[in-house]
Amino acid sequence: METYTNLDSKIINTMRLLSVDMVDKANSGHPGMPLGCAPMMFVLWCKIMKFNPENPLWEYRDRFVLSNGHGCALLYSMLFLLGYNYSLNDLKNFRQIHSKTPGHPEYNKELGIEISTGPLGQGIANGVGMAIASKKKQLNNNIYVMCGDGCLMEGVSYEAASLAGHLGLNNLVVLYDDNGITIDGKTEITFTEDTRTRFLALNWNVLQVQNGDTNIDDIYEKIMIAKKSLDKPTIIFIKTTIGYGSIAAGKSSVHGAPLGQTNTQTLKEYFGFDKTQSFFVDTDVQTYFDELKKHKVLFYNDFNANNKANNNATRTANNISNIINEIDKIKNQEKDYATRESSNIVLKKIAELLPDIIVGSADLAESNKTMVTNTNINKNDFTPKYLHYGIREHAMCSIANGISSYDIIPVVSTFLVFITYCLAPIRMAALSKHRVIYVLTHDSVFLGEDGPTHQPVESLTILRSIPNLLTIRPCDVNEVSGAYQIALDYNVPSAIILSRQTLPNIESTCSLKMKKGAYIVYETNIDEKLELIIIATGSEVHLAIDVAKKIGNTRVVSMPCCELFDEQDSFYKEEILPKNITKMSLEAGSTLGWYKYADYTYGIDQFGESGKIADIKNHFGFSLDKIIEFIKITLF
Amino acid sequence: METYTNLDSKIINTMRLLSVDMVDKANSGHPGMPLGCAPMMFVLWCKIMKFNPENPLWEYRDRFVLSNGHGCALLYSMLFLLGYNYSLNDLKNFRQIHSKTPGHPEYNKELGIEISTGPLGQGIANGVGMAIASKKKQLNNNIYVMCGDGCLMEGVSYEAASLAGHLGLNNLVVLYDDNGITIDGKTEITFTEDTRTRFLALNWNVLQVQNGDTNIDDIYEKIMIAKKSLDKPTIIFIKTTIGYGSIAAGKSSVHGAPLGQTNTQTLKEYFGFDKTQSFFVDTDVQTYFDELKKHKVLFYNDFNANNKANNNATRTANNISNIINEIDKIKNQEKDYATRESSNIVLKKIAELLPDIIVGSADLAESNKTMVTNTNINKNDFTPKYLHYGIREHAMCSIANGISSYDIIPVVSTFLVFITYCLAPIRMAALSKHRVIYVLTHDSVFLGEDGPTHQPVESLTILRSIPNLLTIRPCDVNEVSGAYQIALDYNVPSAIILSRQTLPNIESTCSLKMKKGAYIVYETNIDEKLELIIIATGSEVHLAIDVAKKIGNTRVVSMPCCELFDEQDSFYKEEILPKNITKMSLEAGSTLGWYKYADYTYGIDQFGESGKIADIKNHFGFSLDKIIEFIKITLF
Repeated sequence: METYTNLDSKIINTMRLLSVDMVDKANSGHPGMPLGCAPMMFVLWCKIMKFNPENPLWEYRDRFVLSNGHGCALLYSMLFLLGYNYSLNDLKNFRQIHSKTPGHPEYNKELGIEISTGPLGQGIANGVGMAIASKKKQLNNNIYVMCGDGCLMEGVSYEAASLAGHLGLNNLVVLYDDNGITIDGKTEITFTEDTRTRFLALNWNVLQVQNGDTNIDDIYEKIMIAKKSLDKPTIIFIKTTIGYGSIAAGKSSVHGAPLGQTNTQTLKEYFGFDKTQSFFVDTDVQTYFDELKKHKVLFYNDFNANNKANNNATRTANNISNIINEIDKIKNQEKDYATRESSNIVLKKIAELLPDIIVGSADLAESNKTMVTNTNINKNDFTPKYLHYGIREHAMCSIANGISSYDIIPVVSTFLVFITYCLAPIRMAALSKHRVIYVLTHDSVFLGEDGPTHQPVESLTILRSIPNLLTIRPCDVNEVSGAYQIALDYNVPSAIILSRQTLPNIESTCSLKMKKGAYIVYETNIDEKLELIIIATGSEVHLAIDVAKKIGNTRVVSMPCCELFDEQDSFYKEEILPKNITKMSLEAGSTLGWYKYADYTYGIDQFGESGKIADIKNHFGFSLDKIIEFIKITLF
Repeated sequence: METYTNLDSKIINTMRLLSVDMVDKANSGHPGMPLGCAPMMFVLWCKIMKFNPENPLWEYRDRFVLSNGHGCALLYSMLFLLGYNYSLNDLKNFRQIHSKTPGHPEYNKELGIEISTGPLGQGIANGVGMAIASKKKQLNNNIYVMCGDGCLMEGVSYEAASLAGHLGLNNLVVLYDDNGITIDGKTEITFTEDTRTRFLALNWNVLQVQNGDTNIDDIYEKIMIAKKSLDKPTIIFIKTTIGYGSIAAGKSSVHGAPLGQTNTQTLKEYFGFDKTQSFFVDTDVQTYFDELKKHKVLFYNDFNANNKANNNATRTANNISNIINEIDKIKNQEKDYATRESSNIVLKKIAELLPDIIVGSADLAESNKTMVTNTNINKNDFTPKYLHYGIREHAMCSIANGISSYDIIPVVSTFLVFITYCLAPIRMAALSKHRVIYVLTHDSVFLGEDGPTHQPVESLTILRSIPNLLTIRPCDVNEVSGAYQIALDYNVPSAIILSRQTLPNIESTCSLKMKKGAYIVYETNIDEKLELIIIATGSEVHLAIDVAKKIGNTRVVSMPCCELFDEQDSFYKEEILPKNITKMSLEAGSTLGWYKYADYTYGIDQFGESGKIADIKNHFGFSLDKIIEFIKITLF
């Protein structure tokens, strides 16, 4: 049995047992991590971090990210005790539907959840994004990330850590729960690298706590050393015992299954608690947190008295509607552009006008046309609006989520086909409704000679299948401007899909009309009988119009954003796509998703070919003649 | 001007200029890498590697992987000179449609292309897979991977390298083209880590060649040291000058654009070549390669005389049809299983019978139910059939592609939602038609309390949008057996999608019928008028039957594999899904792809919820009452 030399360790065990009770009550969850990590969680929040439970949105607060999100029972226990907006009942509803305490942390700053986590490794990259954003906003705060073995094994954390070291993010501190256990057993079955040396090689400070189960002084000292780092991020290896104190301590079995009544009672006895009581917070523990909260509020008031209130949020919001008006002035002109080039024109204007923006690319700035400034963020200067991410698509998109949580708009770019490298953070952005703009160029087989490894065919379907994400494929300058207006206007992520090749301007395109997702861009003379509607996007809109002109009796609908069209009322939908008219989709990619709107589809359901664009067009039947032939044979 | 001290450097410059001529003629491609890497390519193939151009499939050959696939002009030049099945005309057709020389290497062992590459970092992980496969087959050969900065920045290469170090893959040698340049500029703008120390930390040998542009003796010596490694993989940092010899040498501009006539002529003069000649191979160079080929054939004949021919390929093929018969005996029994549990039964049988199989999971063996043996591959023993991949989904799937290239069937597993971590190698498997089996469990929101970060909704649509990939979602034991039979039978990758929750056996399911992708599992009495067809998959099939029984006049079609159904003739399609009957899909996920088959869809087009399965079913309307209500209101 453990004896209490001070209140601290009673508090820690209270946190441990609250977490264990939560998992037991839910009959589902992860007790192993909370038992091991309660001491570091306690030290961090109660002894070190800057925050105010009464104003969780205080901009100057330190940020906490639980990269090993499965351990969230511990975080909810902590936030409850600190006086965030959780009741004991919320803890009892752990993992129940519509509760404040879901199975993994879900982005909700009001509740102290700075970002959604769960998929391993993401949190470290999110933390890197926050650290960059924090430096850009000159908030002089710290970002603390807690993580486990899994987070460090994932490639995304390596990518992000390499960039963090490069940028010298001294405001970032990673607390690594070094418990030597993963789900399948001991880490030694797969993970025997010298992680300390690896992080040293990445230009990080590496510190160690030998006994993270009980030595809270050591944890405190090491975090304080990390806080004082001048030019490097810090990782602290904290040796803990998974399931500390329990019968399954040190075993992988305690990771993801409730202890159960008997084992939990034994554990409570071990910690000197009444084994018959659950969700127990003793009076002295409660008093401690009441005092702590007072202290935090006092500090906050002092801080605000000494610093002018920051109105960044309002400033950004105001600016965005102005910026939308400004970029709406960018219209089709004499010259034809590739849509990636029009994108550059629009993006430059946005970057000029918007203070809180960070544009970047995964080493394809020239190809993605995302260079918008002459200066780049570097370890000595975070005021520029451009960041070179390196060839790190996964980290880039996870970092973007962290940046977005600071109300800075991240614009990140790569080739469309490489969403396969970063779909996890794109999904997380959609789930959490981060306003991230993905600039995805080289949007079809028509990119040419680089061949099928670089030619997307399924990518648009993939993006459109993700809830909350707007996938926008504009066809000319007007629609590119409209695409960015939409992306800025909605509090969700947007993927703007752009061509490598030059596309003709279309007279009838309209940045306003496109906000309904789809609209008519061509129609045969009104006295002709309408026999066919071709629904096209991006590079296929002008082709559809050429086809329509040739065959007559045809309407062309540009549908740059299916998701927005789906949101329109049935009257508008019927106006654009009347039920009784045959419809055909035309898009140089997978047809799977187009049957939702069209009776017939014309697309590409196989991988691409390396070759000249003209040969590729011919091979895949994307020519006037081939399409007209298809229509004549199939439809009429 | 360079002077030739020996034939070697003339050959190297011949390779350089062939590559430059190829890019110039195509007016597209990457001259920078070939100019820098020709010396190491030459040393590797001409001085070190074991192969036979007359039998490119020789099992004991060394393998070469071009992870920086954009430099393939150099590889094609090399293979042409070595006497592989390329003509000078093939080089002249570089990057032209249907040529043997596409813009990035495309898997074709007959042509010396051991694996498709292009997306950066993949090749390193592919090489790790080959090295594992090679040890498993006890071939005693080497795997050589050439890579650039981008490959090392990508997280997938870190994950794979960490596992390679753990497994002590001493047969793996990575030649790192350390040229300090990426597309966006110098690597120092994003990549300043100490990569040497990082690889040391990963348990690799690290060697260095200071002058890779001309010092071929040093390259040779270092590779020979690497070959002798007893227990570690080796990376050789080879300092080169991108675009060596050209006017843009050392600049990022030479990476991805043709030099053009003038610059190429200057370069030819610099190398002492006739500037007016293109695609030039001098007589002494040709003689060298004629001799080399004779020598290689001789070595091959000697080797075969001393070693019995290996009939692995035939053995595997024979076995597979036997195994399909064997697992067909696994049928529905009294007990109900989760399909992940049925999968375990089938997979165990396959692993017992198939010699050339490697099963593994990304640290979720217990959850994925992929534990099939009591022994695991480890650094001292590669004969077991199970490999713990660690929490490295991306590397796992890339490694699987490398394993597959050795005609070993890799079975890799994780949660369905985590395809977002490894979609790049899944796409590459589909593109190259690798027979990889993905075991993807926890296949819907019904996994319960872990919540939306772990609950797939869009994943099935994503997989179905990828060409050449079979996505199979079985509903009970019969169909699980059938799913594996399909996966074993087709030379393409298959994703087998499995439930966490227990599902009832269905009397009418059939492992044979399901091979047509979709078939009837329930039909109201024949004298009733058929009014509705419900198309369902996996966990929704039994629910569909319950609905049909309640409302009458309804057929239920189980459609475990849309891709196979699409391949059936129109007669069968009309038989199963007659045009004039109303159809409705029922699947607990994104509806986007279902309009292809159904007039109405019933699914989940939003992210999930953390909660008890019963609450989730109720919330998303997956109950008998809710579905019947929908049918009555919407359809009739």
